Amino acid sequence: MNALTFWWRARLAPAEAAPHEGDQCRFDRKPCPDLCPKALDMNDETPSSPRRAGGRAARRAMRAAPLATDKRPVRAGLEGGQLRVLSDIDIANIHEAALTALEEIGLADAPESGIKILTGAGAILGDDGRIRFPRALVEDMLAVACKDITLCGRDPVNDLHLNGKKVHFGTAGAAVHVVDVAGRDYRESTVQDLFDAARIADRLDNIHFLQRPMVCRDIADSYEMDLNTIYACCRGTTKHIGTSFTEPDYVAGALEMLHLIAGSEEAWRARPFLSNSNCFVVPPMKFATEACRVMEECIAGGMPVLLLSAGMAGATAPSPVAGAIVQAVAECLAGVVYVNAIKPGHPAVFGTWPFGLDLRTGAMSVGSGEQALLTAGCAQMHHFYGIPGGAAAGASDSKLPDMQAGWEQMCSNVMAGLSGLNMVYEAAGMHASLLGFCHESLILGDDLIGQALRCVRGIEVSEETLALDVMRATCLGVDGAKGVGHYLGADQTLSRMETDYVYPSLGDRTSPKEWAEKDKPDLLENTTAKKDAILAERSLAEFDPTVDVAIRSRFKVHLKL
Amino acid sequence: MNALTFWWRARLAPAEAAPHEGDQCRFDRKPCPDLCPKALDMNDETPSSPRRAGGRAARRAMRAAPLATDKRPVRAGLEGGQLRVLSDIDIANIHEAALTALEEIGLADAPESGIKILTGAGAILGDDGRIRFPRALVEDMLAVACKDITLCGRDPVNDLHLNGKKVHFGTAGAAVHVVDVAGRDYRESTVQDLFDAARIADRLDNIHFLQRPMVCRDIADSYEMDLNTIYACCRGTTKHIGTSFTEPDYVAGALEMLHLIAGSEEAWRARPFLSNSNCFVVPPMKFATEACRVMEECIAGGMPVLLLSAGMAGATAPSPVAGAIVQAVAECLAGVVYVNAIKPGHPAVFGTWPFGLDLRTGAMSVGSGEQALLTAGCAQMHHFYGIPGGAAAGASDSKLPDMQAGWEQMCSNVMAGLSGLNMVYEAAGMHASLLGFCHESLILGDDLIGQALRCVRGIEVSEETLALDVMRATCLGVDGAKGVGHYLGADQTLSRMETDYVYPSLGDRTSPKEWAEKDKPDLLENTTAKKDAILAERSLAEFDPTVDVAIRSRFKVHLKL
Repeated sequence: MNALTFWWRARLAPAEAAPHEGDQCRFDRKPCPDLCPKALDMNDETPSSPRRAGGRAARRAMRAAPLATDKRPVRAGLEGGQLRVLSDIDIANIHEAALTALEEIGLADAPESGIKILTGAGAILGDDGRIRFPRALVEDMLAVACKDITLCGRDPVNDLHLNGKKVHFGTAGAAVHVVDVAGRDYRESTVQDLFDAARIADRLDNIHFLQRPMVCRDIADSYEMDLNTIYACCRGTTKHIGTSFTEPDYVAGALEMLHLIAGSEEAWRARPFLSNSNCFVVPPMKFATEACRVMEECIAGGMPVLLLSAGMAGATAPSPVAGAIVQAVAECLAGVVYVNAIKPGHPAVFGTWPFGLDLRTGAMSVGSGEQALLTAGCAQMHHFYGIPGGAAAGASDSKLPDMQAGWEQMCSNVMAGLSGLNMVYEAAGMHASLLGFCHESLILGDDLIGQALRCVRGIEVSEETLALDVMRATCLGVDGAKGVGHYLGADQTLSRMETDYVYPSLGDRTSPKEWAEKDKPDLLENTTAKKDAILAERSLAEFDPTVDVAIRSRFKVHLKL
Repeated sequence: MNALTFWWRARLAPAEAAPHEGDQCRFDRKPCPDLCPKALDMNDETPSSPRRAGGRAARRAMRAAPLATDKRPVRAGLEGGQLRVLSDIDIANIHEAALTALEEIGLADAPESGIKILTGAGAILGDDGRIRFPRALVEDMLAVACKDITLCGRDPVNDLHLNGKKVHFGTAGAAVHVVDVAGRDYRESTVQDLFDAARIADRLDNIHFLQRPMVCRDIADSYEMDLNTIYACCRGTTKHIGTSFTEPDYVAGALEMLHLIAGSEEAWRARPFLSNSNCFVVPPMKFATEACRVMEECIAGGMPVLLLSAGMAGATAPSPVAGAIVQAVAECLAGVVYVNAIKPGHPAVFGTWPFGLDLRTGAMSVGSGEQALLTAGCAQMHHFYGIPGGAAAGASDSKLPDMQAGWEQMCSNVMAGLSGLNMVYEAAGMHASLLGFCHESLILGDDLIGQALRCVRGIEVSEETLALDVMRATCLGVDGAKGVGHYLGADQTLSRMETDYVYPSLGDRTSPKEWAEKDKPDLLENTTAKKDAILAERSLAEFDPTVDVAIRSRFKVHLKL
């Protein structure tokens, strides 16, 4: 972007790019009821007004300087909440139904340790083995639950501050395939694929965290797989990581590795940069016995927890959107009681992740409008409780990053963001109803989420942005000079060019003519080229060599470097 | 979709399609913290409960019967409004700024006839030739303006009832190219392309109206082009049509053709099935002299008008989103005064269509987040005035129906719908920042808009949908019988399968395995096949042969049949 190009294009482009209901300007016909070069009267070489004379060099300089983080048009933690798919009464009714479900239905299958913890806090173990939760217990635990969670990055610049309606987008798990775009193929995902995803995510401004997106299927031993997942993610990015553990016994080894990466146990506990994504329930209304024990270990180790309830509406959760939310809320409230009974205020994300189902076939469907509603509704429940929450959006049912993937990923992502969802999981790269992860799609997700974040940022209404003065000057003129009749040269236009507008990195805005002149670039080919460029660079998240040696001597590390 | 397939798939699919944070169920590892076939315990051949014994035939019959229109999950006229990108204060400030702009800046270039009409109503002609609007005049005209517009289809089943926050999606103009998807090429659009677009739109449930999407570039004479546009659109669809006229003198001929199609002038005036999309202003703040005269002729002929203000933020409108909305609102308010000074209560859609600009290059950009905000903000201004309104959403900057097109089209479409925009123009098929129209994209737009409409429909919260009883029965059982632990066999799941869930027509939800077995179908190839199938069928909108003869003997009709 340079100043000369800007003005040259500005002078030529509108003729072709004009809206053209009465579009005869293209054919030199009349009338030309909207923008055309003649209407713009842009034949003078310097369209700037006298006040900005000599401003071209200044403009060029301004555009050359990088924007400070707080001036960037979009960033992590923008406030959403403009979208409310549930009314206040709807929210109250869902809350009431969830409390009733906890009180009357309760949850089965808690581990022995969990039964002790929960009944110790005031929950009731029934003859049927189910644990039921009196309302007062739920309310008491909500009162002590952590309301303001910082999910640390290994680099503090990547810290996420979860509260209110602040929005963050990231990946989540866990695909078992990686998508080969050029070959239109699905193959089993490996630790190298996971490492590559981490390195790519590290370079994308609008991917704010990395929950492990793929399973390392080239590692047969599940303990080794869990630890190598940590290694590959942490070595690829300094953003916050999320992962899960197969067995409670594995947590000790994981913590040992995390202490090594952090430098010490104290350093880890001061800034835990990895959290445990924990499917602590098997919907409907059953605890996942082993996962609960994993959670207990993680809490003891100072690791934040994502309380993940992933029911499928119509299969493991009620089919109506409202009912699926009720059940997810009830299950996560049980999780809140569990966590806070162990350690009051321990950071735990309220992970209501109800998924959709294609009721015609019984297959999971994550790219639908119903999915977007499930997630948007959940975000409002999180706000109602005042507890940081997360849900799934941005995943596609399509097998490839095609038009379907684009519309599915945007639908739920932009609605999640506008709903003020704190943690938008599965936001980029995920295909085939969570079965396939695609590196190219992850990269394109950065553009897609950037656009969604621009929508979340919303419309600034102020005396300056209402622009009456600029309108007056443009139409009527200033100091006796005639108005220029367009805004291209206005100071405001230039000053807002970078702070207000988001520009896609790979999204193409050329005219058909330019596009043809560039040999009709293909979106996916360009994206693969960008992927290759990122992966050709050295990871910025690499461990100190002595740390790496220490890890590799203590654990079997599969990743070749 | 048949019952057998449903149950067979339901039993097999969840294993592969399960959410799988702790995803070892795929590898026969533990734990399996969410849905897996074992957890579902679905080994019995008839998962139905005794109450529904023998229900399979009934289910099959139920699914074979078409749904009544009012039972369909989505349809034209669903109520939006859940998204509010502007606060009440923002709206008041934009209104106030627009009134100030009308009072102090006013509009230039009204035709002689318009000056007479407007000053006769109370507007003030200044020495500078600009017409300024006292606030009281604007408020008086808002009071008499039409608040409840019916845009008729030639078939009454396609009538659109515009009021409140009811949402309708359709195409708009006007591309000068048609996109050849297979050839990755742009070529000049023809009357045949326009006719084909009309025939395709006629078959798509979620395309509610057809504003002419393409210019017939194979017709050199502009009068013939305007009339052939009407012919091709009306002959292709019985949905409401929008189009524009190059010269005021052309309107008489157009009305003559419309009277022939309707059967008589009386029949036309009783149910005008075509409206005039009228760019009555050249932003900023100038009347489009000739277009205003076209508008006067259309009003006299009983034709509804779309008052279209298409400024480009940063070029012909202020660059901040708020300022661009202010100007568009001011210009359309001037239009409201104009129309109602001629004929109080004449149906006129408040067409604030501010477009975005890529400020780096000066080229138009319609697929951005800024565009989605411009349109969503405008919808709220329409509601503030209580006047049916329209704006542009769903257009893409991409040249082809690729992933970028998908995310761009969904972003602004779903936000427009959630904002309760009455008329969402440019909602399908539009590419290259309005320069190219694509038939395949139009067809895929039907899926995309169906999904957006599902989001607009929102979440139904009632005692039934909160599903506590179903949850109880599923988890605890009924009448002493153990709960089945899943919802696939629940009555509620079946009964909501078709009324609550939207299924894409071309969007693919197969698993990678099924997809590979089907030879990896390509979204665009499938769409082209659907296009060919539609175009191979006879148009259902054809004129009575005697009418067609009458039109062809009176006008030069270019379309070969």
